[in-house]
Amino acid sequence: MLFAVKMDVNIPNDLDPELRAETIATEKAYSQQLQRDGEWVHIWRVVGQYSNLSIFDVRDNERLHEILWNLPLFPYMSVEVTPLAQHPSDIAAG
Amino acid sequence: MLFAVKMDVNIPNDLDPELRAETIATEKAYSQQLQRDGEWVHIWRVVGQYSNLSIFDVRDNERLHEILWNLPLFPYMSVEVTPLAQHPSDIAAG
Amino acid sequence: MLFAVKMDVNIPNDLDPELRAETIATEKAYSQQLQRDGEWVHIWRVVGQYSNLSIFDVRDNERLHEILWNLPLFPYMSVEVTPLAQHPSDIAAG
Amino acid sequence: MLFAVKMDVNIPNDLDPELRAETIATEKAYSQQLQRDGEWVHIWRVVGQYSNLSIFDVRDNERLHEILWNLPLFPYMSVEVTPLAQHPSDIAAG
Amino acid sequence: MLFAVKMDVNIPNDLDPELRAETIATEKAYSQQLQRDGEWVHIWRVVGQYSNLSIFDVRDNERLHEILWNLPLFPYMSVEVTPLAQHPSDIAAG
Amino acid sequence: MLFAVKMDVNIPNDLDPELRAETIATEKAYSQQLQRDGEWVHIWRVVGQYSNLSIFDVRDNERLHEILWNLPLFPYMSVEVTPLAQHPSDIAAG
Amino acid sequence: MLFAVKMDVNIPNDLDPELRAETIATEKAYSQQLQRDGEWVHIWRVVGQYSNLSIFDVRDNERLHEILWNLPLFPYMSVEVTPLAQHPSDIAAG
Amino acid sequence: MLFAVKMDVNIPNDLDPELRAETIATEKAYSQQLQRDGEWVHIWRVVGQYSNLSIFDVRDNERLHEILWNLPLFPYMSVEVTPLAQHPSDIAAG
Amino acid sequence: MLFAVKMDVNIPNDLDPELRAETIATEKAYSQQLQRDGEWVHIWRVVGQYSNLSIFDVRDNERLHEILWNLPLFPYMSVEVTPLAQHPSDIAAG
Amino acid sequence: MLFAVKMDVNIPNDLDPELRAETIATEKAYSQQLQRDGEWVHIWRVVGQYSNLSIFDVRDNERLHEILWNLPLFPYMSVEVTPLAQHPSDIAAG
Repeated sequence: MLFAVKMDVNIPNDLDPELRAETIATEKAYSQQLQRDGEWVHIWRVVGQYSNLSIFDVRDNERLHEILWNLPLFPYMSVEVTPLAQHPSDIAAG
Repeated sequence: MLFAVKMDVNIPNDLDPELRAETIATEKAYSQQLQRDGEWVHIWRVVGQYSNLSIFDVRDNERLHEILWNLPLFPYMSVEVTPLAQHPSDIAAG
Repeated sequence: MLFAVKMDVNIPNDLDPELRAETIATEKAYSQQLQRDGEWVHIWRVVGQYSNLSIFDVRDNERLHEILWNLPLFPYMSVEVTPLAQHPSDIAAG
Repeated sequence: MLFAVKMDVNIPNDLDPELRAETIATEKAYSQQLQRDGEWVHIWRVVGQYSNLSIFDVRDNERLHEILWNLPLFPYMSVEVTPLAQHPSDIAAG
Repeated sequence: MLFAVKMDVNIPNDLDPELRAETIATEKAYSQQLQRDGEWVHIWRVVGQYSNLSIFDVRDNERLHEILWNLPLFPYMSVEVTPLAQHPSDIAAG
Repeated sequence: MLFAVKMDVNIPNDLDPELRAETIATEKAYSQQLQRDGEWVHIWRVVGQYSNLSIFDVRDNERLHEILWNLPLFPYMSVEVTPLAQHPSDIAAG
Repeated sequence: MLFAVKMDVNIPNDLDPELRAETIATEKAYSQQLQRDGEWVHIWRVVGQYSNLSIFDVRDNERLHEILWNLPLFPYMSVEVTPLAQHPSDIAAG
Repeated sequence: MLFAVKMDVNIPNDLDPELRAETIATEKAYSQQLQRDGEWVHIWRVVGQYSNLSIFDVRDNERLHEILWNLPLFPYMSVEVTPLAQHPSDIAAG
Repeated sequence: MLFAVKMDVNIPNDLDPELRAETIATEKAYSQQLQRDGEWVHIWRVVGQYSNLSIFDVRDNERLHEILWNLPLFPYMSVEVTPLAQHPSDIAAG
Repeated sequence: MLFAVKMDVNIPNDLDPELRAETIATEKAYSQQLQRDGEWVHIWRVVGQYSNLSIFDVRDNERLHEILWNLPLFPYMSVEVTPLAQHPSDIAAG
């Protein structure tokens, strides 16, 4: 089941630099594991923003929430979720 | 070069039904040709909306505008374009 | 899988009154069938609005889109979909 | 009398961790007591958000305000209240 | 139980003038009857707008919806409902 | 001359608790004096919000600004002022 | 008593051209009479908009509403009213 | 050349009180000098807001920016600039 | 004196096709004359929109309004004007 | 390939003054190098704002993001990117 998720990151300027670097590294590892598992199918940088647009392919709403809630940067993000379905013009629709 | 494009369709209720059906059919053929050409790489329906979220991979801004401007449904759409770049956490980034 | 859906209805004033009445009746029958089937679990009127707030329990995103797209009043609605998950404070969570 | 209430929680990052944990625990107990009492009839997590969508069934406006004002997390919430009524298509309407 | 209601009226310019006049007259009578009944406790014109701000004192949400839904100008209005409670600084609170 | 005023209060979480309590007490006394004087004719709590909706009956704009500017909580408020006039449907209009 | 008023004019494209010309002429005469009377103290065109920013000096709210409601272009306008007071830095404040 | 400028002031609550008082005094002197010079032609308080609406009559855009950028309160303001032109209904237009 | 102007065009679908074509042609000639005169210094298409972003270099506000008001497509446009000044980082600033 | 970029700068008031001055100086040098390189083709100050409107001419989206992400003031900016294409009325279009 597909979802588009826009994540805008806003880390406070006074966050401890070491904690900041560590959180960003953990976030990257977390994201890459989910990409390898096939649940986080796309991640793009939005040009000029500390933001990404991602596509998730997950079992259900519960699983998507679990993934997002546990993002290491979640406390510094605003997140927007858009449920997707197959488009009738998609050539993959057969 | 990648762009996310959100298209919201709003066909007037009083449009001639034949013209409506014909425009929607032409739109589908137009989209599918661009999908086969590799420029329109994803098209998803937004759940509960007469809208799609699409990803384009085009040569440049000029080409993206040419594609969108010539959409048969363009006169009935509002369109939002978001330029994308590779995300540092993307496993495809190597 | 649960979704909250807000539907705002805006039927044009110049719609043929017979067609209007018929569409509203078909909408009611359509909604009630889905309620009996257990997919449309709640429907509430928003006070002072030609709107409803509904809760759906469906198999997946595809099914939710199919239900909403085929609403007889869909061409006159604006629709907002919110995916829901179990809340950790819900006493039903055990 | 039914109300939909959307609560968005935004706990400051610099809140003392012990106070934070304690407040969240008190909030949970407070919510579950009202659920058992039948006044807080539904609570759902909004996917990807530190938010919930809840349905309250209360005596009147005064009681709803009393419940919300005394939420342990109230100082960190923004709250949106929507009064609901029975929908004519509700099969429970008889 | 008190509610503030803001009503913005937007009658289409091409409405039949007789129907327009009649609807406005019926609306006035409808409002004045509810004022005399004690349910529509205040009605003020918003300066420079075809709008009013009103205060209702009604039994419950159902009754408020019934009143608003049956406003002769309802099809031409956008309506915003705000539930009110007694303020602790109100000298009438004793 | 009548005005509706919506006041949203947002006291910073780190305000000294004693100052906070004192400011709220002064605000209450200030409001009640103006109520007794007949200038602050209504004050209602907005359900679920740290907000009030008030009606003022004052000599002129200057007086209204003087009252609002001197509210003890003014530095922590956002304020929205709506000038009102008599509505032609008001039964008090004679 | 001073008010700033922003008026945005949106005359429908299908309005009868004669009625359009006549309404604009009546509006001009109406405005100029009020300017000569000293109630409509400033009128400026907003650059690039079919809009004006005006300053009114009137007896009270009732009079301002009477002036605005009777504008010949009122049915085609959206109007925003801002009550003004003397600024403490105004050199005219003495 | 005329411009309307809306200035909303938001001085942080934790600003040193002496610096605060001094900045406000400097702002007043700065504004009054420009009023005497004929460049800052009107300044009004917006009722219920820490805001002013002002009219400037300046040589060009560069000069307006220079004036606004050097406002002592500029770091604490949000500013909105609207270019104005003579209105065809202005009786001063001859 | 420089201004950025964003123009969004929205020609009604039911406009007579001949009038439509003629208006667009007149608009083009009008724009190109002003470009040759050096007042309309840049015009860019906004990708995916029936919109342009333009830069004007004009004598004053009056002249900018005269140019915009007389655009053949003005009745079908919404227009947003932003006054510009020289930026201190501009290498042309010397 | 052209892009319009609006940058709004919001440096926290409590930033160390030396760091502030240094960051602004580095930003200026960074911008001027890119201007000399022909990638940052225009930079204008928005009148009355700590903002600029800029035009970039870059190889692709990746390069634009690289430029913006490395702006010394990027952590204190909100950035809005608009892809541009040649306008059919541009006299340079031949």
